[in-house]
Amino acid sequence: MIQRPRGTRDFGPEEMEKRRSLESKMRREAALFGFREVTTPIFEHTELFTIKSGPNVVEEIYAFTDKGGRDISLRPELTAPVMRFFVNELTNYPRPLKMFYFGQCFRYERPQSGRFREFYQFGAELIGNPGPESDAEVIALAASIMRSVGLKDYNIRIGHIGVLRGLLASSGVEGAQAAPILQKLDKKEYEEASARMAEAGISADEAERIIEITKTSGPKEVLDKIEGEVRDHLLEIFKILSYYGFDNVQVDLGVVRGLDYYTGMVFEMDAPVLGAEKQICGGGSYSLTELFGGERTFSTGFGIGFDRTLLALEREGYQAPSHVIDAFVIPVTPSMKEDAFRIAAQLRREGVATEVDLMGRSLSKNFKHAASLNARKVIIVGEKELAQGAVAVRDMSSGDQRLVKKEDLRSELQ
Amino acid sequence: MIQRPRGTRDFGPEEMEKRRSLESKMRREAALFGFREVTTPIFEHTELFTIKSGPNVVEEIYAFTDKGGRDISLRPELTAPVMRFFVNELTNYPRPLKMFYFGQCFRYERPQSGRFREFYQFGAELIGNPGPESDAEVIALAASIMRSVGLKDYNIRIGHIGVLRGLLASSGVEGAQAAPILQKLDKKEYEEASARMAEAGISADEAERIIEITKTSGPKEVLDKIEGEVRDHLLEIFKILSYYGFDNVQVDLGVVRGLDYYTGMVFEMDAPVLGAEKQICGGGSYSLTELFGGERTFSTGFGIGFDRTLLALEREGYQAPSHVIDAFVIPVTPSMKEDAFRIAAQLRREGVATEVDLMGRSLSKNFKHAASLNARKVIIVGEKELAQGAVAVRDMSSGDQRLVKKEDLRSELQ
Repeated sequence: MIQRPRGTRDFGPEEMEKRRSLESKMRREAALFGFREVTTPIFEHTELFTIKSGPNVVEEIYAFTDKGGRDISLRPELTAPVMRFFVNELTNYPRPLKMFYFGQCFRYERPQSGRFREFYQFGAELIGNPGPESDAEVIALAASIMRSVGLKDYNIRIGHIGVLRGLLASSGVEGAQAAPILQKLDKKEYEEASARMAEAGISADEAERIIEITKTSGPKEVLDKIEGEVRDHLLEIFKILSYYGFDNVQVDLGVVRGLDYYTGMVFEMDAPVLGAEKQICGGGSYSLTELFGGERTFSTGFGIGFDRTLLALEREGYQAPSHVIDAFVIPVTPSMKEDAFRIAAQLRREGVATEVDLMGRSLSKNFKHAASLNARKVIIVGEKELAQGAVAVRDMSSGDQRLVKKEDLRSELQ
Repeated sequence: MIQRPRGTRDFGPEEMEKRRSLESKMRREAALFGFREVTTPIFEHTELFTIKSGPNVVEEIYAFTDKGGRDISLRPELTAPVMRFFVNELTNYPRPLKMFYFGQCFRYERPQSGRFREFYQFGAELIGNPGPESDAEVIALAASIMRSVGLKDYNIRIGHIGVLRGLLASSGVEGAQAAPILQKLDKKEYEEASARMAEAGISADEAERIIEITKTSGPKEVLDKIEGEVRDHLLEIFKILSYYGFDNVQVDLGVVRGLDYYTGMVFEMDAPVLGAEKQICGGGSYSLTELFGGERTFSTGFGIGFDRTLLALEREGYQAPSHVIDAFVIPVTPSMKEDAFRIAAQLRREGVATEVDLMGRSLSKNFKHAASLNARKVIIVGEKELAQGAVAVRDMSSGDQRLVKKEDLRSELQ
């Protein structure tokens, strides 16, 4: 047998019903917030991702050379493609421009539990405003999505890249030099971070203080530890989030998201039910457009791990609505086939999900098949009943069966 | 600026609203017929496609070698992946198993008008029954989809691969030897087909007769030209399609679909409004499972060219519903921000698509922005009105403005 490629998945009917149900709740919530969908290609020029994340990223992505000799990559994430699209074609839209997207992303790494080479991401970007209102709006959307999909236990941790950038800068470490330190702090690899800070000439005391700051977490009152614009910006975000009805929000200055293009607020969401791999959403404010050849533009966005969010919901006991066919039509004899097909066609036109026997099965085998499809009602098309302009309708859960005039079928079934 | 890869597309908000609207109509129709969605990976082992379509197919697809040395291809179509999935995991489902899918496919060819390297396909497969009822059900679904999406002018042409296979076999040409002849006949390259038939030892007279047969088209009465089981099978399909309400169906024995795995009925649908590149759907009955390591299983399926169908609709004047925000909330002064955000959050929770000023704009600039977003109503949050527990609501199309109690906002906006 030919197998699917390693690290990929096939989704059968039950799984797809669950996934589409979750996707449509996310989609609906984004629309309620005024975000509009965009779609970009599955692959991009590899350059797009190396410009954004550095040349090392190639090791972790599906990069290949196409037949025309071009370096192409399956997208590892969707922010860079969407911002490329913005720079190329969307700069004339009124600001703020609010967009969302949903689709497959790819990474080349050893497949392991819960981590796939092909995975799904739902994300949003709000372009054109660096204010706390925009940051809060984006966090509120992510939180509203989790609420609307029914996730019971999740938390929101908010930090600000400016805190650490400021501390490093006052020790004379800026820009490209700061990046490796921030990456280590992001991963909470404190020894490595200390070593990097020592190399960069930061004193041991100051390094310790910086590490202490990244361990700052708790309610918004812990912001008293820091000062200035960053604190005011974060306090304003907390305030607006409380207007939005979200008070389950914590400060966590350990949210660093070690990439150069983040400019301010950064946030993460966890679902504790997932244990060690609990992060289900990450985002922040950033500027990428100038890297892609556009004008510098402030944006805030997030990416939700669709697969992990679904897993969290299932761990919490979430049950997706199971597939139900409204009606299954059975002709009692082959001579009833014409009427059976006509009835099925009519019901479908009226919006009733309907199956009809295609196999020429016996009445009892058809009943068994209808039961296996979870059909709500079975419509039995027999000669005697048809002579009275009627069919027999059996309710599959109660077992009740009664005559129904053909013209009353629709209301009977709705 | 970094451009998107050649032959791919980005879809902006207006385009996506059109595409999602079309997709959801197709999806809904498939569900009404009892088809259930499945999803397979974006890439597969290249072998899957060469087994199905021959080694030459590699020239036309995005084939590459991954870092683990595996031959991988971006899927050029979805029937092979779905049948691989079926063989691997779905054989225990009750028959007939009815599945649909929607997603990106890829081909490596020179990009040209209306043909993209990344394109979208909507398709369905009905597995487990070779009878005319199944063939008719699948054609009826394709036709119902075109009706439900509102395509006014389309036609359905039905043929049968058994007609030509039978004629070639009675001249001693079968299996792999027949394939290149069928491919030429499929493309209506009659001179080439004659040459191949001569090479295979078919007399000039017989070759001419075979070509004549492929030119047979018209209403079902033209089936009198052929005989036996094939004729009976096709007549039964036409009869069931008329029960389903589809009488705009023609015979076309020139529908050959030159691939080995087709076993019986083959069909195509055209949208004449598209001119030369008018085909919007193709399908037929086939058996692929044994090629992928499973038991021989009869199936019938189709693929709809999503992009071409949308193009046909647009040529016919189809207008997708344009994006409309229900409400845009404006705080008159910064001190009204809290109430503005609270009102926006409340409306969104109640299912009203709502925007709120994030930019701290003036009243007049906010009105301009609300108009550019096609907001139906603008909610003006002012101190005086709030003191009465009310806000001002302006209807953006009539210009009427009136006071509305906060608790009546929801019904005012729905």
